[in-house]
Amino acid sequence: MLNSSSYFSLNGQFITDNLPLNLLNDRGLAYGHGLFESILLNDSRLGLIDRHLARLCEGAKILSIPLDSSLVLKFINLFIDQLHAASVTDGVVKIIVTAGEGGRGYQSPADIKPTIICSYSNLPAGFSDYRAQPLSVRYCQHRLSDNQALAGIKHLNRLDQIMARNEWNCGRYQEGLMFSASDHLLEAISANVLVKNRAGDWLTPDLKRAGIKGVMRSVMIEEIFPACNIAISIAEVSGDQLAQCQVLLLCNSVKGLASVGSLYDGQNQLVKSLPIDQQTLMLYQKLIELYPQYK
Amino acid sequence: MLNSSSYFSLNGQFITDNLPLNLLNDRGLAYGHGLFESILLNDSRLGLIDRHLARLCEGAKILSIPLDSSLVLKFINLFIDQLHAASVTDGVVKIIVTAGEGGRGYQSPADIKPTIICSYSNLPAGFSDYRAQPLSVRYCQHRLSDNQALAGIKHLNRLDQIMARNEWNCGRYQEGLMFSASDHLLEAISANVLVKNRAGDWLTPDLKRAGIKGVMRSVMIEEIFPACNIAISIAEVSGDQLAQCQVLLLCNSVKGLASVGSLYDGQNQLVKSLPIDQQTLMLYQKLIELYPQYK
Repeated sequence: MLNSSSYFSLNGQFITDNLPLNLLNDRGLAYGHGLFESILLNDSRLGLIDRHLARLCEGAKILSIPLDSSLVLKFINLFIDQLHAASVTDGVVKIIVTAGEGGRGYQSPADIKPTIICSYSNLPAGFSDYRAQPLSVRYCQHRLSDNQALAGIKHLNRLDQIMARNEWNCGRYQEGLMFSASDHLLEAISANVLVKNRAGDWLTPDLKRAGIKGVMRSVMIEEIFPACNIAISIAEVSGDQLAQCQVLLLCNSVKGLASVGSLYDGQNQLVKSLPIDQQTLMLYQKLIELYPQYK
Repeated sequence: MLNSSSYFSLNGQFITDNLPLNLLNDRGLAYGHGLFESILLNDSRLGLIDRHLARLCEGAKILSIPLDSSLVLKFINLFIDQLHAASVTDGVVKIIVTAGEGGRGYQSPADIKPTIICSYSNLPAGFSDYRAQPLSVRYCQHRLSDNQALAGIKHLNRLDQIMARNEWNCGRYQEGLMFSASDHLLEAISANVLVKNRAGDWLTPDLKRAGIKGVMRSVMIEEIFPACNIAISIAEVSGDQLAQCQVLLLCNSVKGLASVGSLYDGQNQLVKSLPIDQQTLMLYQKLIELYPQYK
């Protein structure tokens, strides 16, 4: 069932009332010193939880946040139990992990005690449209920040995505494509991209310098493409390659796999229309065979 | 007087107990969608408040946060009054402004109601040493993210500074110098830099692509250097220019002006020792003549 209320837990405690004052000193709020995961909750089960936890721990290591993954999982499971008791079985569970309380100054405290927040929300608006019909997407003007040390992980510094998403306000586009300063395609605002180029080869952008390595991206590369016997490589994708592509797919662990039908530039001019090809249907069939929650 | 307690206000209300639950949905925590200012409180007066407010409003405009600067000032003044009533007259007042509550997803709500947080803390540890004696600083390995659209403002996405500050753990260095991916000097972790190069010319790095335009940096460029009849220009500063510089100064609106005595590289090897020159003394004298709080 769907439920419109929000639910929260803080460090394993279900919160229905007030929060402790020290949250105003949290390094997540002060500096974005933390990470998050948005996980699909389907019939009280969390999809791809192992991959989400693995990415969370990898990010925590890079940000020097000591994180006990079994404790995080325990808190998540407690949260799911409490949602279930409230008859909430479907939606999105978001986990935020921060470096916890830390006074003034950038230096991390010697003894970091992470803050672990679980929150629930309904499936996003437009969710059913996203999978059911080809999407309209546009190019974003805002460029992703270039930084090798922070690329790949899902940290809390997300001004790039906010700047890009604020470029349009109408309901005409379901997603925006984001580029590097050197005009290479990197990802969509809330999804990774899979491109079938003019020659018929599948590519997904190299995210060494910027972008988030999505959980669904790894499922596609490691499981779905191989199971369909279709090769895919990680490579740079230039703006020209994008404009000449045969197929463009978006993938996201909450929304699943979607195909782009119309590509618009930053001035709302149609760049091209894209068909749904046979390989896309194969990939989609294999995905929902292995992960029926993405049907 | 100094006081070791922390004080907070949230949207103009002095908070001594619990926080509202919706802070867990705040876009500041979720994405770092917001800004901050750290302001020196001296004898119940806030230093350079006009410049701090101007930078805050400039940042809010870039991040599309509608901000009424007179309301922010009202909340700050209420906060200072309450600190004064608690006999707290000196320290640091930090203002955080976020895009407020916002459900899931990067898109800003149609009607943003900013969250405005004031907090108080003591003067930072090592504060008196900072101004009194030449500093030891080191080169940081972590590079500042390159992004023209977000450069200059003091937003809440500060993982770069955290990564850099976590590179050392000893008390040997008071600051770290931060560079661009192309190895140009940009700033210190918590301060801007002023360089007297080998030819005797004063420069401060161009921050068009990365870095924070500090309030004290603008005071130095617009007031102190002109008042001393010393020219300073905004320019690129290469690693070689830094290694050959005659003088290196750090400036910060809380800590004031400090000179670097020893410069170390990222492997803790001494690059060079630097003297305090006559012009530095002139600049310092002029600063404390105009702004005695930096004595």
